[in-house]
Amino acid sequence: MRTTSELRLDADSLKSFVEAVFVHSGAPPDEARIVSDHLVTANLMGYDSHGIIRVCQYLEDVRKGIIVPGAAMRIDSETDNSAILDCGWNFGQVGAMRAVQCAIAKAQSHHMATVVTKRCNHLGRLGTFTQAVAEKGFIAIAACNSPPGDGRFVLPWGGRDGRLSTNPMSFAIPSDDGNPILSDFSTSQVPEGKIRLYKNQKKKLPVGWIVDADGNPSTNPQDFYGPPRGAILPFGGDLGHRGYALSLLVEILAGVLAGVGSTKQQPGNGLCLIVLDISAFLSHREFNVLIGELRRYIKSSPPAPNHREVLLPGEPDFRLMAERSAHGIPVDHQTWEQICDSARSVGLDATEVSKMSQLS
Amino acid sequence: MRTTSELRLDADSLKSFVEAVFVHSGAPPDEARIVSDHLVTANLMGYDSHGIIRVCQYLEDVRKGIIVPGAAMRIDSETDNSAILDCGWNFGQVGAMRAVQCAIAKAQSHHMATVVTKRCNHLGRLGTFTQAVAEKGFIAIAACNSPPGDGRFVLPWGGRDGRLSTNPMSFAIPSDDGNPILSDFSTSQVPEGKIRLYKNQKKKLPVGWIVDADGNPSTNPQDFYGPPRGAILPFGGDLGHRGYALSLLVEILAGVLAGVGSTKQQPGNGLCLIVLDISAFLSHREFNVLIGELRRYIKSSPPAPNHREVLLPGEPDFRLMAERSAHGIPVDHQTWEQICDSARSVGLDATEVSKMSQLS
Repeated sequence: MRTTSELRLDADSLKSFVEAVFVHSGAPPDEARIVSDHLVTANLMGYDSHGIIRVCQYLEDVRKGIIVPGAAMRIDSETDNSAILDCGWNFGQVGAMRAVQCAIAKAQSHHMATVVTKRCNHLGRLGTFTQAVAEKGFIAIAACNSPPGDGRFVLPWGGRDGRLSTNPMSFAIPSDDGNPILSDFSTSQVPEGKIRLYKNQKKKLPVGWIVDADGNPSTNPQDFYGPPRGAILPFGGDLGHRGYALSLLVEILAGVLAGVGSTKQQPGNGLCLIVLDISAFLSHREFNVLIGELRRYIKSSPPAPNHREVLLPGEPDFRLMAERSAHGIPVDHQTWEQICDSARSVGLDATEVSKMSQLS
Repeated sequence: MRTTSELRLDADSLKSFVEAVFVHSGAPPDEARIVSDHLVTANLMGYDSHGIIRVCQYLEDVRKGIIVPGAAMRIDSETDNSAILDCGWNFGQVGAMRAVQCAIAKAQSHHMATVVTKRCNHLGRLGTFTQAVAEKGFIAIAACNSPPGDGRFVLPWGGRDGRLSTNPMSFAIPSDDGNPILSDFSTSQVPEGKIRLYKNQKKKLPVGWIVDADGNPSTNPQDFYGPPRGAILPFGGDLGHRGYALSLLVEILAGVLAGVGSTKQQPGNGLCLIVLDISAFLSHREFNVLIGELRRYIKSSPPAPNHREVLLPGEPDFRLMAERSAHGIPVDHQTWEQICDSARSVGLDATEVSKMSQLS
């Protein structure tokens, strides 16, 4: 008897279920587990747009041959502290986690490393990968671009036509407090999904998010989707030249360095991951003392009006993860039905699906 | 006969003059030239707040013993691709240029490098150093923090009291077009100097730049200066959590990694410079082809309403440099008189000063 508009699903059960779905789609179990962990953790941390809602898309991509489960990955070229990793169109998460391992191994032996990917599918929540690096005690900075195949709907500063993607950046810093300081944000004013949300809710957009096809500011979500298609402004509002600059930096690090042209039609993402070994500069003990001092100093600011406390980047996400780990992940019925349909389509035992559905 | 409100000074003459001022203050000629080049080039590129207006401040710092002309610099600790450079409280520009040389040398032999500074004075326009790296064919990313001595007047997101400085970032990318793609921006919504300008002009600030001492939004510049003192918001307007995150990243890279605590009272700046060797990834020829493609693609966007064309980061600065190189650097009379007074105070021949003044 469901009376609420959403289910609450147990994270561990959900992980097993999603893993089984990808195994049935042809992925080796260890790779299916990487993708499943990634998606469910995104939900746990509140990134629902990058969570299990992607299962259907990925299965569709497998069917179309865009994602090649089990595909071999190889280092295209490398030095002691750099590499171009060819992900062979495996799941983007599998490729990016290989990049993480590669960069950590190089930074362990050579103090710092930069790894870029090519032929990498949609890699999901970028913060997953910087977080994984920080959890090993290293500093990580990541940039992620999208080739034009996924749409270039972010304006260059002063321009009228989209030339960039939402090009997110992320960094993670180990903290004395357990969870890393973790930031993950698009260099566009908003991600596209947020505009879709306003459109579905028939709400006006805040000023400064989009322009219409003529380049004029608009608060009507339909002016973005068109036709004719509008565009999203770069991050920074009136000062969006900074968001534009960061977006270009992402494009160059994650695209150009991997040898991928900015106008080449292909799916997926490019990733650039820079890893720094803290112990090249100071001991982990000293670092922890200074990070602790900074953390306490920042958090000692009294809260602004309408705020309860000052949080560090990532802190809201880790709090939500604790809450959702304890009380389940909210999933709306429509999304869940779509996932169940997808699961059946790869021949997953219907009893299993039904059992999963009962967890709410 | 001066009828205009400003002088126009020839850049090369100005460089020689400012160099002579610093030599008279006790700096070795090669170090005086670094500082002079830096300041005049900042004026050429339009960063007047970081140009020759700083001469008086630096001479005052020399008198107070804050800046130690000719001070020895040394590597505190290093690996093949990292270093902590102790700048010995020499001019900040001299220290930062040494960091540039050190990072380039390491990246040349080991593909990438990260150099951080300590005991570094005010280093001026951050873009100077990333630009110098890019002009040698490498990619540079830089972060610059300020210890609390210079004021912590930027809010952490959700806070009421300043905990961060304007913490600028810069990057520079070699371009097929001659000048690098060059970006240099504070991670606060505005630099402090811009608020001072509005105050002097008795103008209201745009919404979203500052809050008063109670943390409430204000458009009155006086609410920032107080007393009681207000604060500047982090970059990003309503979405300032991203500017806050970037500011923290700067603080950690440029302060913590050098072993400098975030609450330690001291003057100057901390610098973190990350340098990547492009040829670790692809040939310079391939890189240039792809950068050219990206450059043309970006610039092919028709201009937005009220814009004439799409420019790359740094393009406006290089254009202004060409204009000011040809037609002189505008300097207001008050600033120029202050500089002449400073020059006389270090015993610079008054004829020289007067000759310089006639260039307008």
